[in-house]
Amino acid sequence: MTAISRFPVPELKDLPEDVRARILAVQEKSGFVPNVFLALAHRAPEFRAFFAYHDALMEKEGGLTKAEREMIVVATSGANDCQYCVVAHGAILRIRAKNPLIADQVAINYRKADITPRQRAMLDFAMKVALESHAVAEADFAALAAEGFLREDVWDIAAIAAFFAMSNRLANVSSMRPNDEFYLMGRLPK
Amino acid sequence: MTAISRFPVPELKDLPEDVRARILAVQEKSGFVPNVFLALAHRAPEFRAFFAYHDALMEKEGGLTKAEREMIVVATSGANDCQYCVVAHGAILRIRAKNPLIADQVAINYRKADITPRQRAMLDFAMKVALESHAVAEADFAALAAEGFLREDVWDIAAIAAFFAMSNRLANVSSMRPNDEFYLMGRLPK
Amino acid sequence: MTAISRFPVPELKDLPEDVRARILAVQEKSGFVPNVFLALAHRAPEFRAFFAYHDALMEKEGGLTKAEREMIVVATSGANDCQYCVVAHGAILRIRAKNPLIADQVAINYRKADITPRQRAMLDFAMKVALESHAVAEADFAALAAEGFLREDVWDIAAIAAFFAMSNRLANVSSMRPNDEFYLMGRLPK
Amino acid sequence: MTAISRFPVPELKDLPEDVRARILAVQEKSGFVPNVFLALAHRAPEFRAFFAYHDALMEKEGGLTKAEREMIVVATSGANDCQYCVVAHGAILRIRAKNPLIADQVAINYRKADITPRQRAMLDFAMKVALESHAVAEADFAALAAEGFLREDVWDIAAIAAFFAMSNRLANVSSMRPNDEFYLMGRLPK
Amino acid sequence: MTAISRFPVPELKDLPEDVRARILAVQEKSGFVPNVFLALAHRAPEFRAFFAYHDALMEKEGGLTKAEREMIVVATSGANDCQYCVVAHGAILRIRAKNPLIADQVAINYRKADITPRQRAMLDFAMKVALESHAVAEADFAALAAEGFLREDVWDIAAIAAFFAMSNRLANVSSMRPNDEFYLMGRLPK
Amino acid sequence: MTAISRFPVPELKDLPEDVRARILAVQEKSGFVPNVFLALAHRAPEFRAFFAYHDALMEKEGGLTKAEREMIVVATSGANDCQYCVVAHGAILRIRAKNPLIADQVAINYRKADITPRQRAMLDFAMKVALESHAVAEADFAALAAEGFLREDVWDIAAIAAFFAMSNRLANVSSMRPNDEFYLMGRLPK
Repeated sequence: MTAISRFPVPELKDLPEDVRARILAVQEKSGFVPNVFLALAHRAPEFRAFFAYHDALMEKEGGLTKAEREMIVVATSGANDCQYCVVAHGAILRIRAKNPLIADQVAINYRKADITPRQRAMLDFAMKVALESHAVAEADFAALAAEGFLREDVWDIAAIAAFFAMSNRLANVSSMRPNDEFYLMGRLPK
Repeated sequence: MTAISRFPVPELKDLPEDVRARILAVQEKSGFVPNVFLALAHRAPEFRAFFAYHDALMEKEGGLTKAEREMIVVATSGANDCQYCVVAHGAILRIRAKNPLIADQVAINYRKADITPRQRAMLDFAMKVALESHAVAEADFAALAAEGFLREDVWDIAAIAAFFAMSNRLANVSSMRPNDEFYLMGRLPK
Repeated sequence: MTAISRFPVPELKDLPEDVRARILAVQEKSGFVPNVFLALAHRAPEFRAFFAYHDALMEKEGGLTKAEREMIVVATSGANDCQYCVVAHGAILRIRAKNPLIADQVAINYRKADITPRQRAMLDFAMKVALESHAVAEADFAALAAEGFLREDVWDIAAIAAFFAMSNRLANVSSMRPNDEFYLMGRLPK
Repeated sequence: MTAISRFPVPELKDLPEDVRARILAVQEKSGFVPNVFLALAHRAPEFRAFFAYHDALMEKEGGLTKAEREMIVVATSGANDCQYCVVAHGAILRIRAKNPLIADQVAINYRKADITPRQRAMLDFAMKVALESHAVAEADFAALAAEGFLREDVWDIAAIAAFFAMSNRLANVSSMRPNDEFYLMGRLPK
Repeated sequence: MTAISRFPVPELKDLPEDVRARILAVQEKSGFVPNVFLALAHRAPEFRAFFAYHDALMEKEGGLTKAEREMIVVATSGANDCQYCVVAHGAILRIRAKNPLIADQVAINYRKADITPRQRAMLDFAMKVALESHAVAEADFAALAAEGFLREDVWDIAAIAAFFAMSNRLANVSSMRPNDEFYLMGRLPK
Repeated sequence: MTAISRFPVPELKDLPEDVRARILAVQEKSGFVPNVFLALAHRAPEFRAFFAYHDALMEKEGGLTKAEREMIVVATSGANDCQYCVVAHGAILRIRAKNPLIADQVAINYRKADITPRQRAMLDFAMKVALESHAVAEADFAALAAEGFLREDVWDIAAIAAFFAMSNRLANVSSMRPNDEFYLMGRLPK
């Protein structure tokens, strides 16, 4: 079996109770344990902070739909050549958007994806945060406001792009392997 | 007074108890509240996750000294043109390394800083994680092993570089302003 | 219906006999007409030269398997953010390699794909041809020879990468849309 | 004598009749055989497709003058550091434009060449196709329309830039040597 | 003691009279000899031309204040990762601007520095000269004119950025070490 | 007549005596006044320093031949897209090397020029100084030493590349026009 990480992967039985519980809950819901949970588990305090942060950004209410948040993840992870995040979040995006084509489109070149002008503006900004955040300027905020985004929405876009800047780097360094299950998820009609 | 963020900055009295307590503790210790605490406070769940993650990486025991961890922060934040992180963590680096010159050297061009070959290898790797993590390869791990780094140390280097990839982007987008106090900290003999 | 090109798309009945015959043959074999045939058809002489060149490179005998040639297409098209070529040739790669995961892996980051060291060397070279051909040097030829590639194989790798440098640009400029059928091809067990 | 290619160069007598005829015709017209004909000849099917494509783009009627088409070749080949194409097509450009200075100007920095605003717009677009085709957008088409280019002209510009994206890569990888004759052609008054 | 250059550093007594006089004058004024004077001294003709050029640009009258000229030096030297120039001219900038924060701000990310819109336009242009001078265009001149810069001021900005493009490269190649004194200069209230 | 600079060009009669004398001497020798002399003349102190520096580097004795120094100019000016310097110094290079092909070869892609391995190492280093001087390291010095370059020769290479980093920027910003005479110089057998 191919390794899922360049770093040690603990066994479930050796994990702290809360970490194990979180993993079992995901397994219950998804039918398998996404490898990111296993690859990060050997550092319990980091694991806890990572998923607390993730959930605070991806599960909260707000002006962005859950599918739109996944678009941000997929577009910026594509720009960072992150295999784990493109494949795993591509699956989630297909499911949340109920669209079997959207993830590949956004990952390869979001400029040609079947998205709305508002989503295009959102991804233009997310990519700037991912690739040249030092140059973000008032004009970028104005462009988002023109598409109806509230300032809190802008924070969401930026924070998601920033969080996955971290996440992509962790996955790239550890050579985290996407579970085979992700590749096909959301591609077939229910 | 110049704004410390493009986003809302709450008043201390309006914050959840644990967030306020954390901020007051920092103020007690440092004599002022670093702006990152105020700028992130309007999103309490993200604030909690951010600092839990930060502490898990920067305060833990391990093969890297605290000064070395700050070197990673300063070098990669310099590469990302992040004013807040270079200035604030530059101050911390000067203090932890007891060296008034090291932070400017590392921020501008770590290749010419007064560091050991081991630290040079550490920063070469951290910069690769920051700037082209998709290309990290076994040869990079071998170079670190040759300098005596354990695999857990490598995780630390990578995770710190990754965490500040996020942090730099948050600070750049919010135009987070470093406190004036940081600029002089650690520059004068005690 | 979404446009398949920014340029005029002729109707089959208006095409020269040989162009129409080629298109009908593809339709017969694949069950649909890949949009590249329609998008290039409004310039019959270019259409003929394009597919003659394509077939000379992709259908010939030689030291590279057909799956390997498609790997070159998918990896370099990913680097050029070409939606049409990644999606369409990704499908062909999955089929030729009889591997439902390989195309996404190669498109996102071939360094982490489930490929042999020989294929890794092949893709390293193809990417150099795609991205910085001016710097190709004798050392690159030596690296390929060390993996057992003959000089004629090297030509094949280079010529395929070069041909799709052209093809990616044509698809990007025309905003050529991949057929929906490609996305799922080769992902399900037969 | 310096090699004209890293790959085998066949002798004329060993070539298929049509390939040899094409080469002899060029020799008749130019007084020498440009090395690209010899360097590509060892693969007859690719040779045929390459020159059929070349002629379809460079010899056809249309909204671009022949000199303008050569400008596209020289500018984009300069950007790709392609010695063969800059030298050989620089010669052709000088002749077609009846201007001994224009080729060097366009190759080094077309922004400062003695060209019309319409030609400047044409080269701006050609360079975008050469260097970042994934970002070509409707605004680029509008800029060309504003200078009077028809949609078919835009295809011509894009297709020429794309064809030489391929051609530059073939010449760079094979280290194709420009014939000495090209350097002086078109520089002296007739 | 750490070397101040990779190249030979002559002793004062071995220098031509005018070179030694210049160095002693600086020492008299500053209290120490900035290392650039020693590092360049082993080539007296180049030393003379370098400082004649420097003084012609930095000491002359004109539309830019001396602090503004130093801003150009610090911003462009930051972009070139030049340790000597950022540290030494950062000190001079702090003193000339009577602002202990400005040098670090400008070096790390001038877009977020406490400067006027006019100074922002000046630095935008200086950075373009430093990083992509081939693309400087009439629109850049118009943007400067809109902020009230005269054409002679524009020359000053460009010439300072160009001179330090040279200076940064000399310092980087020679690994010129900034004097320890510079780090603290201008940071404390008088 | 096309302007030779975006900035004022003084008349000879209005220039200081030494500046005029220098210009007349060049005219005497070359048969025409290279535009760089006129374009820089409106700032006499900078003119004097510029040419004093130029002569100190280009006319001195040393381990590099005059032709080799011009190779450095042409290669780095090509990398900076500097029309004036490539055309004017290309002419000088052809004359000094007595080789009508060398300048175009070096300007477009020095890796494929007809030069010695020693000259190749020299240009590799010059290009690193021009394009990423912050990364120059001991290994670069070792590579030059291996080709027989003395440390003083290395200074010459670096200083010439650095001086033309300045010169290219001045020419690019001022849109300095190369004299028509340069284009043909050194291309015909004497």
